[in-house]
Amino acid sequence: MQISMHAMSHAVFKQALNQLLHVMEKAIANARARGFDVSVLVAARLAPDMLPFSRQIQLTSDFAKNSMARLAGVEPPKFDDVETTMDELVARVKKTLEYLDTVSASALEGSETRQITIKLRDRTVQFQGLEFLQVWALPNFFFHHVTPYNLLRHNGVDIGKRDFLGR
Amino acid sequence: MQISMHAMSHAVFKQALNQLLHVMEKAIANARARGFDVSVLVAARLAPDMLPFSRQIQLTSDFAKNSMARLAGVEPPKFDDVETTMDELVARVKKTLEYLDTVSASALEGSETRQITIKLRDRTVQFQGLEFLQVWALPNFFFHHVTPYNLLRHNGVDIGKRDFLGR
Repeated sequence: MQISMHAMSHAVFKQALNQLLHVMEKAIANARARGFDVSVLVAARLAPDMLPFSRQIQLTSDFAKNSMARLAGVEPPKFDDVETTMDELVARVKKTLEYLDTVSASALEGSETRQITIKLRDRTVQFQGLEFLQVWALPNFFFHHVTPYNLLRHNGVDIGKRDFLGR
Repeated sequence: MQISMHAMSHAVFKQALNQLLHVMEKAIANARARGFDVSVLVAARLAPDMLPFSRQIQLTSDFAKNSMARLAGVEPPKFDDVETTMDELVARVKKTLEYLDTVSASALEGSETRQITIKLRDRTVQFQGLEFLQVWALPNFFFHHVTPYNLLRHNGVDIGKRDFLGR
């Protein structure tokens, strides 16, 4: 194992998304055990003006797949944000994991100096690849990865940090 | 700029902790504007059996400083967990940032293959340095960095993702 842009993106996203799947499975089982429809959790928010669980998962997926694609210098695959059920969100995460494995380590060679431009609603942000990973891709990914965990935990789902970490 | 173990730990932690300070300052101002004592936020939890805001901040600090130290192969500095006010927690984060700057890039050279052993309450976890960073240091750090953000957001503090990211 050697440190590389690929090692610090692909392996990090992959481990985290696999744990996200595990946490989502526990949420499905917990809703069943407590006798309510899991769609309540899919629509849950931590504040009225925060994005719901479903949108958080779509964004976790987006920051993983889009970041890998941008580092590789290819067009990110477009996943339509159509998921409305927990099962559909699980499928979205699985599809994201499949995409990550199509981006090879060699595709990211030299990506630390790649110019990356992100178009936001109101502005454009530019980075070199390394800075993109340090201050954009990883923080954004974890922001949307930890928030659905917190949402489920706030709603009484029986998960702990070990479910999140997987070690 | 080149990818290295130092670049993928020091710069990531530093940017995040500086944004955490910014978010904490907004929390202090928001409590003042809404006319309640900020200690309410310091003691806030997302669930009765989750750690409060204060402990989340101490752990964010711990995962940053301890991870850097372990990668450098030195004893992590011990910060006593005595903070009970928002001002004391701000000072803890500042002290953590100061420590991070004492760990040089050269001290982390070759740390991707360093054997790292973490003693937990009920078991011991072992990693090579790279895997430690990928699946332990970064996920744990962000877990405790995003959770206080979510705690404040849940309690109506006027923060958004841009405050978290800083870009």
